Amino acid sequence: MRILVSNDDGYLAPGLACLARALGEFAEVDVVAPDRDRSGASNSLTLTRPLRARKGENGFVYVDGTPTDCVHLAVTGLMEKQPDMVISGINRGANLGDDVLYSGTVAAAIEGRFLGAPAIAVSLAGSAGQHYETAAAIVVRLVHRLEHDPLPADTILNVNVPDLPLERIAGLEATRLGHRHKSEAVVRAADPHGQPIYWVGASGPEADAGPGTDFDAIRRDFVSITPLQVDMTRYTALEQVSSWLKKLRT
Amino acid sequence: MRILVSNDDGYLAPGLACLARALGEFAEVDVVAPDRDRSGASNSLTLTRPLRARKGENGFVYVDGTPTDCVHLAVTGLMEKQPDMVISGINRGANLGDDVLYSGTVAAAIEGRFLGAPAIAVSLAGSAGQHYETAAAIVVRLVHRLEHDPLPADTILNVNVPDLPLERIAGLEATRLGHRHKSEAVVRAADPHGQPIYWVGASGPEADAGPGTDFDAIRRDFVSITPLQVDMTRYTALEQVSSWLKKLRT
Amino acid sequence: MRILVSNDDGYLAPGLACLARALGEFAEVDVVAPDRDRSGASNSLTLTRPLRARKGENGFVYVDGTPTDCVHLAVTGLMEKQPDMVISGINRGANLGDDVLYSGTVAAAIEGRFLGAPAIAVSLAGSAGQHYETAAAIVVRLVHRLEHDPLPADTILNVNVPDLPLERIAGLEATRLGHRHKSEAVVRAADPHGQPIYWVGASGPEADAGPGTDFDAIRRDFVSITPLQVDMTRYTALEQVSSWLKKLRT
Amino acid sequence: MRILVSNDDGYLAPGLACLARALGEFAEVDVVAPDRDRSGASNSLTLTRPLRARKGENGFVYVDGTPTDCVHLAVTGLMEKQPDMVISGINRGANLGDDVLYSGTVAAAIEGRFLGAPAIAVSLAGSAGQHYETAAAIVVRLVHRLEHDPLPADTILNVNVPDLPLERIAGLEATRLGHRHKSEAVVRAADPHGQPIYWVGASGPEADAGPGTDFDAIRRDFVSITPLQVDMTRYTALEQVSSWLKKLRT
Repeated sequence: MRILVSNDDGYLAPGLACLARALGEFAEVDVVAPDRDRSGASNSLTLTRPLRARKGENGFVYVDGTPTDCVHLAVTGLMEKQPDMVISGINRGANLGDDVLYSGTVAAAIEGRFLGAPAIAVSLAGSAGQHYETAAAIVVRLVHRLEHDPLPADTILNVNVPDLPLERIAGLEATRLGHRHKSEAVVRAADPHGQPIYWVGASGPEADAGPGTDFDAIRRDFVSITPLQVDMTRYTALEQVSSWLKKLRT
Repeated sequence: MRILVSNDDGYLAPGLACLARALGEFAEVDVVAPDRDRSGASNSLTLTRPLRARKGENGFVYVDGTPTDCVHLAVTGLMEKQPDMVISGINRGANLGDDVLYSGTVAAAIEGRFLGAPAIAVSLAGSAGQHYETAAAIVVRLVHRLEHDPLPADTILNVNVPDLPLERIAGLEATRLGHRHKSEAVVRAADPHGQPIYWVGASGPEADAGPGTDFDAIRRDFVSITPLQVDMTRYTALEQVSSWLKKLRT
Repeated sequence: MRILVSNDDGYLAPGLACLARALGEFAEVDVVAPDRDRSGASNSLTLTRPLRARKGENGFVYVDGTPTDCVHLAVTGLMEKQPDMVISGINRGANLGDDVLYSGTVAAAIEGRFLGAPAIAVSLAGSAGQHYETAAAIVVRLVHRLEHDPLPADTILNVNVPDLPLERIAGLEATRLGHRHKSEAVVRAADPHGQPIYWVGASGPEADAGPGTDFDAIRRDFVSITPLQVDMTRYTALEQVSSWLKKLRT
Repeated sequence: MRILVSNDDGYLAPGLACLARALGEFAEVDVVAPDRDRSGASNSLTLTRPLRARKGENGFVYVDGTPTDCVHLAVTGLMEKQPDMVISGINRGANLGDDVLYSGTVAAAIEGRFLGAPAIAVSLAGSAGQHYETAAAIVVRLVHRLEHDPLPADTILNVNVPDLPLERIAGLEATRLGHRHKSEAVVRAADPHGQPIYWVGASGPEADAGPGTDFDAIRRDFVSITPLQVDMTRYTALEQVSSWLKKLRT
């Protein structure tokens, strides 16, 4: 099996090295990752300029683009051999609830959706970044399990792992994404010349974080595993919108 | 009603001006848009540096950030008065099927999801950019209809309008997103020094574009209106993943 | 005569429009300027990616690069007709003393040094940006004078004009660049997450600003005109360094 | 002695590591360098956004800015202890003649001009990047010599070293900057969508490269050492411009 590994923290991030090492023990691993931290990049794709891909001292290929650019290049011809699946991470910090929308880690996994196996995004919850090896061990088990008992090829799993030693992990749980309230207010400040500047405010507090959500699983020291879909159609609203439109004259 | 207008083509784009003008005839309109073309920005959010917001000669506020940044700032405190809804566009070029994932136009609308009314992303299909006023007229009708017969507040409508005179529009259709095949291969080239560079390949051909899809509606000269959801959980796979996980030892 | 006009404040800056208008009354004028504010860009040249050049609604060509990129493209083949000289400005704010090192306005003029006539960089001293027409009138006179009484073709004139009505200008003075003390200390701050950030400190106070310097001319409401050279060799130190080196064994 | 080392090739460049190692054998060395390749950055200074400084795995501080930003921060308060001198390099590739204008390597040295000792920019001529240790050995000798026989504190030395083993270096030569002809024409190309793009053309051929120039020294396998000055006033033209201006009515 050949696995493409990417991330959004950049090709020198410790979580990436830990993941590549763990997967490398049983699979062919290619790493193609951004040349620097691209957290918050979402699925952004670089269309107006060409990209460059170089090999770093650690053997990883780095690209002057977004996580999506990296995986896009890798699965459309950059690499000599096409990967079988994409695994993105290990992100420093959780990707839970609405954060998934903005996440470059998840976006990199999504960009692997055309390959023959499920894609996985893996994040280490908490800001300390201490137990990447726990997350790596979880991913290795998921991949082994997928080999013997496959999920549909277009499955995307968003995996969040508590930042704990493996023995303190309470279990694994299939979850849905929770939701946050609106973000905190923009942070107004001034530059040294007195000109106004604005920082994007912090994520909003959890709004829907009860049992069944990813927020809840992490809170109880469970690994949260959320199947994602790429099709953003709100199918449940199709009929309503359809009848609503009928009353509208063109 | 106070409407926030944004886009991803930049604050000087003709589609933005056309939209703001049409909405301004019956609503209070604030425009907050990127300082330049940010097509392909998806939901990317600028977290590592502060943003600046300035007013251009055309009265529009421009921000040195992504479409998501623009709407984020505007709804979390940049503007004196909070808008009631967000409308993003009129994008030059369609946002159909999988393109929605990468679209800054759609992302700007999504960022308006916490407001009290549906958000709308509107794009003009085709590359010529001739009939923005058709798209503007469609949006105006949608907004008027929403005033008298509201849809749920968290609705996001992805509207694609054929680039035709209004009288040649065949009708409006509620659609689901179609799907594309994998993108075309990366385009390898060389810079003048002989170093390799890589361009992201063109979108893949339509794979799922039959009746009911946005691709099909546009092909038949209909306005395509797709309700979107922000929650990316694949609910239909939750049970399967849950039982799959049970067989996995932690 | 065909004059290429550029700047570092971006193609929409009022000082650029004022300059182009004034020169356009007697010369063919092409404007090629950055797509946005690139103050502080110095002579930086974009080598790692290609540039794009588009025509704005105001008829000016804008480039997604530095001031040096703009003039470089324009004089090496972008334009149908080769310009005879380059004039850069009117910059909002002075370019005096050591500031010249960092100035994109001056850099744009320097990049015109291979053409057949002197290059001019023009800046409006003061931060209010009120009397661009004064600076434009001064430049027009300089150009007319150059036509009838040329200076050597490789001359670069750094012109700073007080922000005053033309009738209040005390005169024109040939000056040398003054010098500043070291910059103010870096400004430490924190982002909303408590992470340290650093702003470049303000320019240092004037250190050498007596009679004969550009600082002094501006202070007395004179137009300051400093001839610049591109060759940075310190000829007066050549002999000293040469004998110093002799005592050094390879 | 405490030496600040910087460069424009980025904090992971082999030439930087080689230089820091060699100087570290006899001096306290702090390295503050750009987070990535910033060749061609000239003296550009980042004024519109704050900078971040982090420590890499190699112990070097990296900044998300230009070479000038790096040295500016370091000498205005970023570092606990103020350096005594700045050495920039070892650049991969020569910085000869007019190239000096655009060089980030030279700019970093210039930014050290307010310290108590001469600043040095060092580049390895040729594109192969094989003999960094030769350039490092030359710099070490220059620094030792400066300790025992100082040059004026505001001296800036632009050092270019042939890419050869130390024993094949023919000697050291004090030189003036040579000059190049105008650059090669802009390289027109097209992106995959057929839109025009433009690459900055290659440096022009040598125009003034005879005996006494840096070009000539390198050609004869000598180390070229050019004293630079920061004051760009063309003193020899002051009188001419002064009398030329007298004939101009305000």
